[in-house]
Amino acid sequence: MTHPRFLSFSRNGHHGYGLAVEGGVIDLSARHSATWATLREVVEAGRLAQLARESKALKPDFALDEIRFEIPIPSPEKIICVGVNFPDRNEEYKDGQTAPSNPSLFIRFPRSFNGHGEPLIRPPESPQLDYEGEIVIVIGKGGRRIAEADAFSHIAALSLCNEGTIRDWVRHAKFNVTQGKNFDRTGAIGPWLIPFTDAAQLEDIKLETRVNGEVRQSDRTSRMIFSFRKIINYISTFTTLVPGDVIVTGTPTGAGARFDPPIWLKPGDIVEVEAEGLGVLKNTIADEV
Amino acid sequence: MTHPRFLSFSRNGHHGYGLAVEGGVIDLSARHSATWATLREVVEAGRLAQLARESKALKPDFALDEIRFEIPIPSPEKIICVGVNFPDRNEEYKDGQTAPSNPSLFIRFPRSFNGHGEPLIRPPESPQLDYEGEIVIVIGKGGRRIAEADAFSHIAALSLCNEGTIRDWVRHAKFNVTQGKNFDRTGAIGPWLIPFTDAAQLEDIKLETRVNGEVRQSDRTSRMIFSFRKIINYISTFTTLVPGDVIVTGTPTGAGARFDPPIWLKPGDIVEVEAEGLGVLKNTIADEV
Repeated sequence: MTHPRFLSFSRNGHHGYGLAVEGGVIDLSARHSATWATLREVVEAGRLAQLARESKALKPDFALDEIRFEIPIPSPEKIICVGVNFPDRNEEYKDGQTAPSNPSLFIRFPRSFNGHGEPLIRPPESPQLDYEGEIVIVIGKGGRRIAEADAFSHIAALSLCNEGTIRDWVRHAKFNVTQGKNFDRTGAIGPWLIPFTDAAQLEDIKLETRVNGEVRQSDRTSRMIFSFRKIINYISTFTTLVPGDVIVTGTPTGAGARFDPPIWLKPGDIVEVEAEGLGVLKNTIADEV
Repeated sequence: MTHPRFLSFSRNGHHGYGLAVEGGVIDLSARHSATWATLREVVEAGRLAQLARESKALKPDFALDEIRFEIPIPSPEKIICVGVNFPDRNEEYKDGQTAPSNPSLFIRFPRSFNGHGEPLIRPPESPQLDYEGEIVIVIGKGGRRIAEADAFSHIAALSLCNEGTIRDWVRHAKFNVTQGKNFDRTGAIGPWLIPFTDAAQLEDIKLETRVNGEVRQSDRTSRMIFSFRKIINYISTFTTLVPGDVIVTGTPTGAGARFDPPIWLKPGDIVEVEAEGLGVLKNTIADEV
């Protein structure tokens, strides 16, 4: 079974959204932007399934290589990231602390991400650009204090993230990783949103990150320290989740910082993040110009 | 000299913005909302001074007690907060670490704040609601890698913040204070925006926080560890600042967590944050219902 693949794009300077299909892109924004300005509004209206159904008879409006991918939800109210959520990741920090009892959370701004196929940008301030492959949840139905049992009914769609990090800037200050996680366009989200309709799409899927074809991170979501259900429950304890909110759910062990000596990303490298059923998020690396 | 005082409000379920003047509120949104939807767009257009000038001949449209204050910029792209930025604050953490060489930064969502006069909300999850009085910078002219010498030309306006915190949730996880800083409506920003036209409005002003009339925090901005100029320079090194961005610049020593035993805020308390030239941000405390 192939799930529909919703994407946000730019083409000739115009921003839109559509469906990636055999042979190209169906431009949904050309048909629906007066009703739903972006995929965030489509998600909020609960219309992913309907749009996918209605589009089955349509032919692609243009080829995939005519567009540039953008992050699927262009302006979410929140992008919340979970740190240290796979086995062995806690040990990577080598600080002698035991595993945490609650998820570590930090926030990224949308402008810290690029779309699929665009480069991750290495800034002049640091050579320590590192990858982190992760699975992304997009909230469809908002709520506060969402029970774990109900959590999956609040998910509209899934995607992938390369939660690119400037490693030395993560430790720049007394607390908080904010600055190392928020250099402009150091990460990526995409390629697309896959509507979430079945728990099997999440509960035990393989997540893998490759650099120039070499597997660097590989694990299964069934081994996550904090489950998807727990994450939604915990975050919604303090903040009201709203449609379009993006949760980046943590990376397996094997980031470049783990190697001795560390291996940072450099211009020319190709990083791929892949998860079963969600596709491959592929990005090159480029120095900021 | 009295500076103009721009505020965002709700009135009979309608959201607007205006000027607080002798005798009430001039409703600017009634006159300009087609051009500038919120104060964010006014700031982006650089029109605070013009609107203040044009309004001098106008009479108030309604009394101050007919409105509810909202946070001045309703949906900024970013709210970035500086931690540990006054003398003795580093010692409050009692972790034996020396003072940091870079500012600690964390992010709050707009929904973690209420307006002036509204209660700070104590959630059922914790009794440890604490105050932190701070000065707020609103960015007028965006930029990346802004030089310290140019920093003040990027500030459009100033305001106050009670950076209300759920103290035990700040330490819930391995890193990052995200969750303890983002309970819905635990903080406040306001009452209004004061246009920034002169360095003397910032460089050595008194900042004070009172609980039920008792002074708990009192210091001067000239003693900040990281200056306003340095903060703008540092933040803009990693992220592009845009008009309407909000920077919350750090609190003096004396939060409730500092007392032995700690003194948490409780329903019925009145907290006031005051700074010279910026007014008084006043909030009560209420349990979440």
